[in-house]
Amino acid sequence: MSYNAPVRDIAFMLNHVVGLADVAKLEGFEEATEELATAVLEESARFTSEVLGPLNSVGDAEGATWDEDGVKTAPGWVDAYAQFVESGWGALSFPVAYGGQGLPMCLSSAVQEMWHSSNMSFGLCPLLTQGAVDALAHHASDEMKDRFLPKMVEGVWSGTMNLTEPQAGTDLAAIRTKAEPKDDHYLITGQKIYITYGDHDMTENIIHLVLAKLPDAPEGVKGISLFVVPKFMVNDDGSLGEKNDVRCVSIEHKLGIHASPTCVMSYGDNGGAVGYLVGKPHHGLMYMFTMMNQARHAVGVQGYGIAERAYQQALAYANDRKQGPTLLSGNDSEGIINHPDVRRMLMTMRSSIEAMRGLALDCAAAFDIAAKHPDAAVREAAQRRGELLTPLVKGWSTELGVELCSLGVQIHGGMGFIEETGAAQHLRDARITPIYEGTTAIQANDLIGRKSARDGGQGLNELMDDMKSVLEELKASNEVNLKAVAARLAPAIDAAEQANEWLLGQNDPTQPSATSVEFLMMHGRLAGGWIMARTALAAVAEKQKADADDAYLDAKTLLARYYAERMLPLVESGKTIIMDSAESTISLDIAQL
Amino acid sequence: MSYNAPVRDIAFMLNHVVGLADVAKLEGFEEATEELATAVLEESARFTSEVLGPLNSVGDAEGATWDEDGVKTAPGWVDAYAQFVESGWGALSFPVAYGGQGLPMCLSSAVQEMWHSSNMSFGLCPLLTQGAVDALAHHASDEMKDRFLPKMVEGVWSGTMNLTEPQAGTDLAAIRTKAEPKDDHYLITGQKIYITYGDHDMTENIIHLVLAKLPDAPEGVKGISLFVVPKFMVNDDGSLGEKNDVRCVSIEHKLGIHASPTCVMSYGDNGGAVGYLVGKPHHGLMYMFTMMNQARHAVGVQGYGIAERAYQQALAYANDRKQGPTLLSGNDSEGIINHPDVRRMLMTMRSSIEAMRGLALDCAAAFDIAAKHPDAAVREAAQRRGELLTPLVKGWSTELGVELCSLGVQIHGGMGFIEETGAAQHLRDARITPIYEGTTAIQANDLIGRKSARDGGQGLNELMDDMKSVLEELKASNEVNLKAVAARLAPAIDAAEQANEWLLGQNDPTQPSATSVEFLMMHGRLAGGWIMARTALAAVAEKQKADADDAYLDAKTLLARYYAERMLPLVESGKTIIMDSAESTISLDIAQL
Repeated sequence: MSYNAPVRDIAFMLNHVVGLADVAKLEGFEEATEELATAVLEESARFTSEVLGPLNSVGDAEGATWDEDGVKTAPGWVDAYAQFVESGWGALSFPVAYGGQGLPMCLSSAVQEMWHSSNMSFGLCPLLTQGAVDALAHHASDEMKDRFLPKMVEGVWSGTMNLTEPQAGTDLAAIRTKAEPKDDHYLITGQKIYITYGDHDMTENIIHLVLAKLPDAPEGVKGISLFVVPKFMVNDDGSLGEKNDVRCVSIEHKLGIHASPTCVMSYGDNGGAVGYLVGKPHHGLMYMFTMMNQARHAVGVQGYGIAERAYQQALAYANDRKQGPTLLSGNDSEGIINHPDVRRMLMTMRSSIEAMRGLALDCAAAFDIAAKHPDAAVREAAQRRGELLTPLVKGWSTELGVELCSLGVQIHGGMGFIEETGAAQHLRDARITPIYEGTTAIQANDLIGRKSARDGGQGLNELMDDMKSVLEELKASNEVNLKAVAARLAPAIDAAEQANEWLLGQNDPTQPSATSVEFLMMHGRLAGGWIMARTALAAVAEKQKADADDAYLDAKTLLARYYAERMLPLVESGKTIIMDSAESTISLDIAQL
Repeated sequence: MSYNAPVRDIAFMLNHVVGLADVAKLEGFEEATEELATAVLEESARFTSEVLGPLNSVGDAEGATWDEDGVKTAPGWVDAYAQFVESGWGALSFPVAYGGQGLPMCLSSAVQEMWHSSNMSFGLCPLLTQGAVDALAHHASDEMKDRFLPKMVEGVWSGTMNLTEPQAGTDLAAIRTKAEPKDDHYLITGQKIYITYGDHDMTENIIHLVLAKLPDAPEGVKGISLFVVPKFMVNDDGSLGEKNDVRCVSIEHKLGIHASPTCVMSYGDNGGAVGYLVGKPHHGLMYMFTMMNQARHAVGVQGYGIAERAYQQALAYANDRKQGPTLLSGNDSEGIINHPDVRRMLMTMRSSIEAMRGLALDCAAAFDIAAKHPDAAVREAAQRRGELLTPLVKGWSTELGVELCSLGVQIHGGMGFIEETGAAQHLRDARITPIYEGTTAIQANDLIGRKSARDGGQGLNELMDDMKSVLEELKASNEVNLKAVAARLAPAIDAAEQANEWLLGQNDPTQPSATSVEFLMMHGRLAGGWIMARTALAAVAEKQKADADDAYLDAKTLLARYYAERMLPLVESGKTIIMDSAESTISLDIAQL
């Protein structure tokens, strides 16, 4: 099944809902006009549909392979990556100083959706490089930046993030990898697991960012330092030197993303891998946190990106496949899209994807404002907003993405279970997204703790206030669909405020932790409804223009209504679940489970 | 991961909630005492955990294989099947007249849960044989029954159901397989797909039940006839004759149940396969429908059976895996089961499985009463109840089963995505259950149409009345958990009654069809809450006994409360979704999807 990027929908969201024009007013983002955005999106659509999309099923079937010499990617991938670098796709959001294009995150996120829709396994390589570039750009010395960043931004070197060890996943305090000082560098020894693109054949060098402990490290998370460990040593003139003492010892056999090698990395089998300390000793975890918002956001984009692909495939099938007389067409010569339940599934997919996309782009725009706005108070509020929305983008969009990919299988009926159809691959691929870069529980803890309780609910209250403003706009309209959205948004906001109040009133974190994922999902669904309400308001406003495409704009309004009627009731029940089930969740004697 | 059948929980449900003792009062079921049931369950537990369970991952990794000579099952399967036959497991529920043991369906269903928990791919072979036996027992001539049934009941021959063709899945009216009369039989020609165990090496013969059209068949579903087509001809003395003109031309590469061969069957490549008409011409679909309730029920049992396996695996991991200090233990030397969110996921799995198990067994007991009760009015009401609950058992338990298997993956974190862990297999296997034997949409249509609208809501109203009686019992108690269950059951019943009224008030089926799956899920969740309420009442009553195991019984009550607080709020939101979103679901111009 081919992929066609939904350029028009993405552009509508950027221009009419998220407010790209406001972002383009900021110093440094002036180039990000509607015209440039459209050109970038169209070019990205061409590249992803023509180059990356066709490799998706090949990658699944062939996978990455390992032997003693390292990892080989699937047929066609080396060439596709070369084209990716050639076109500069990896450099969109990076600083101009290091060869990047300095575009705002809201636009680069919009482009990245297309990577993951067309080929999520492929998209992971630049996603990880981006994370590594972020960490270095924020925390490395100028000398280190000059040595590594230009090639990484260009994409001719890729980057990895080495956090997890067998005994240390969610709990990074437990890592055992060691760094011993030696001359101007350190010798790193230890094993890391789940290293995405830890080895591969698409770039001439790989720059590993590795968490390790110095000999004098204090116990726990405050004793972790961050190191750069290149696969090949980099000489002062930028040329590559000897191979470093690091190798991939195996790759995992996984449920999905077969083409993305998930590596077990061994550092220091022959005395120690040469590593360079990033920033100050013992600050590694803090440095990781500064880039984590962006990495988590990127995984959220994967969540709806893969759902978009599943949607396109299911839609095509539902149009083609004929099966009995359908209620919505009255005859049996039309596709199953005319069965009301198939329509329900497609509407659920489509409206949810728009809601998730809008939320992710809105969150990215908040980070753009936080980065560049001249007013410190505005920057601070925008940063608070971006950080609050990030766990929703990551947690809600990935959980919902899995559900939608499962609906995509269901629409195919028996064909959905047959691998060659391709629908099942999307479900298999999507299933990792609620796990990596912090499980949904981690996102939920972040939401209720760092992002809510810590600031006394300031960020949440500001968000609720923005939602209430949108609700007032809806109420002021007589448009029937806007009124229907308001009818469901109003009780949903009420319910969320009650849940917020309950959360903020708890002294002991145990009960909130027991329903924190419900809390995250409730706020994700509600935030999606808020985005869709804004989409509907924008569509109604656009209809006033002379050359308006009424059918397209009416669909936006109707999708917002469907979303409100299908998803926002779950915010109301979510409140009850959060407040009522917390106690019983944690009351059972473990022996009885 | 080994499987240990939850004998005590199953027996508790049978004896204290579903009322096995009442079933055992019926003529023909006298042997099904609590003692016999316990003995059967314990023996089945031993067989499934020792023989079938260990083959589950082998089956997934090796799969069934095809070559020109036919299908070979995975290593160890032929021997395991021989033991299965030897122990008479396939014969439990079949008529004594044909070598069966004549046990009630509620007990045989309890046993079958263990087949599917231990090895769903294996369990499918006897599941299909059972369907074929049912169809023949109800509709074949005595001569045909005598010829085929004893060996099928014994299990030395297996059975298949051949319905689907490439153009005819949900819409069976579109089948093209032909049956031409020839002497005392018919010659069958055509291709059938998705034939579970259409060929394999575990039995000496395979008896195919095949839907086909006679030359004079009227158009549509009223022109379909049912034929028996044996793989090997059966001589008058019962010995096997020549191979029939039927073969498996390929097997599918599927997302899951790799060890269950899904065959493309070709009939009549060399002139026509010999087939025998079952019952009257053109009545094939009706005959299929009479056995469909049972087959759908069996797939519902698979839904929670596979979830039970996923639960056991996740529970073991959550006890073993240590990852940071946990809120519920206060230290980091305890398993992640002490993280509140892990507890939430395990509680959701455990309580949902008990609810689904109870509903399936309650439904089976209704069919037992319908089959044997001396009072015709009781039989009729029980049949109505069994038929009403069947789409809930099939649709709700399979959809929820997939969700729970996905939670099982999530509990494992990154390990869940690695195939060798085994958690992912359960998700892959489970994913077929909402599709085969009628998709969830088909179950939902059955529920709102044949099972609700057609009888003016009689069956639904009787069910609501039974739920209200249970609610009164809860309200009469001062036990804190029973009161908590009542607090959530009351508004849920109200909400369902409003949705029922809405459904029955619709003249046009289009809107109800648009939210029929929501309607099914709402009633499934509610029925689960009703079962759990009865479980809690039974546990509280059992606690009055002298030798009561308080810890075990308190856990039952608490699980019921958790279920009510976690799942019943979704019944309330379900009502809103059903009534509010039906119109917008079907209003979008297809061109805008």
